[in-house]
Amino acid sequence: MLKLYGFAVSNYFNMVKHAILHKGLEFEEITTFPSMDPAFNNKSPMGKVPCIETEQGCLTETSVILNYLEATYPAKPLLPADAFQRAKINEIMKVAELYIELPARRLFPEVLAGKTVSDDIKAESRETLKKGCKALAALIHLPNSKYLAGNEITIADIVVRYALITGGLCAQQIYQWDLINEIPGLADWNKHMAEMDISKQLDKANQEGMAAFLQAVKAK
Amino acid sequence: MLKLYGFAVSNYFNMVKHAILHKGLEFEEITTFPSMDPAFNNKSPMGKVPCIETEQGCLTETSVILNYLEATYPAKPLLPADAFQRAKINEIMKVAELYIELPARRLFPEVLAGKTVSDDIKAESRETLKKGCKALAALIHLPNSKYLAGNEITIADIVVRYALITGGLCAQQIYQWDLINEIPGLADWNKHMAEMDISKQLDKANQEGMAAFLQAVKAK
Repeated sequence: MLKLYGFAVSNYFNMVKHAILHKGLEFEEITTFPSMDPAFNNKSPMGKVPCIETEQGCLTETSVILNYLEATYPAKPLLPADAFQRAKINEIMKVAELYIELPARRLFPEVLAGKTVSDDIKAESRETLKKGCKALAALIHLPNSKYLAGNEITIADIVVRYALITGGLCAQQIYQWDLINEIPGLADWNKHMAEMDISKQLDKANQEGMAAFLQAVKAK
Repeated sequence: MLKLYGFAVSNYFNMVKHAILHKGLEFEEITTFPSMDPAFNNKSPMGKVPCIETEQGCLTETSVILNYLEATYPAKPLLPADAFQRAKINEIMKVAELYIELPARRLFPEVLAGKTVSDDIKAESRETLKKGCKALAALIHLPNSKYLAGNEITIADIVVRYALITGGLCAQQIYQWDLINEIPGLADWNKHMAEMDISKQLDKANQEGMAAFLQAVKAK
């Protein structure tokens, strides 16, 4: 059976778990925090979560895992059949990851742990976030569609939803800037995504795990 | 016909061009520098290169383009058929991109433009590079194989080769650290990759474009 390593507060973990739940796959969840301990490091070479274990071995990196799940479990699809459309969806995912989630993540020390992030990093991250939001707006079909890439849900919706939870939180706290309202149609889409049963389940687990997680981060 | 936008000094451009030449595809190369000018920005939403233009539209992000080319032009394959093996190859590519190329790229201002990169960034990048090299070593099959993921060339070989040109240059100049010798088997593999006709062609174009590129960077 598929094993999923990670923890409920990790937005990348939630991207993979959302896809697994969407597809209704049987899986075992093994709560794991990022670690370079050999036992986990042998599964995840950067020590990161999420990590999945299949009968053929382990895989890390969310976008890699999501495309693997789609290729291996095509029922309840999260990607269209056409190669170009698939690529556009992966382009949306990569823009959200590299130019929204990653710059927001550089603000984590201040947002999560009460440390100070330098003004240089804040300015650089804001610049990247601005470009990232503009690029995302150009790539998605909203507000003329139900989902980001058309009228069917895809892995782009899942990735962007959880990327924006991090991105939105950090931009709000550091810049008092509402990322979601930056992009036409995104607020309604975000509300619709949040109303899904799977989103509710993951958001609840996230909230329940958050207090203990923040304590652990601050103790570091 | 496929159009390829970018310039000969860009290592990401060279990854895509190497794959296109390997597959023997007809294409038109349009020398383009990263730009937010509307004419190019409409094709590449982050203004980045490489960008390809197909009959269905444009695509950016190297890993997205490489997987698209494979799906669309499966002859002279650069990926195996098995979904798990394909995912492992994409995992190698992502590790090389995020944890070797990206931290090395943060050293560019000092390496390419004679500016000073802070000691904090240098220390952080070195830490990521160390973990990235260790992760790469764990994921690849060398020294017990001809290529990174077995005895056939894949897009992982192409991505890692050009990622290491940047990574190797920056690590050497900033830390006097030889990344290639960090990983068993990589030096021989790298030599073998460099001897390919396509590599020679791209390396020559890179060298020819380098002087003008460095002048443009320093003038900025």
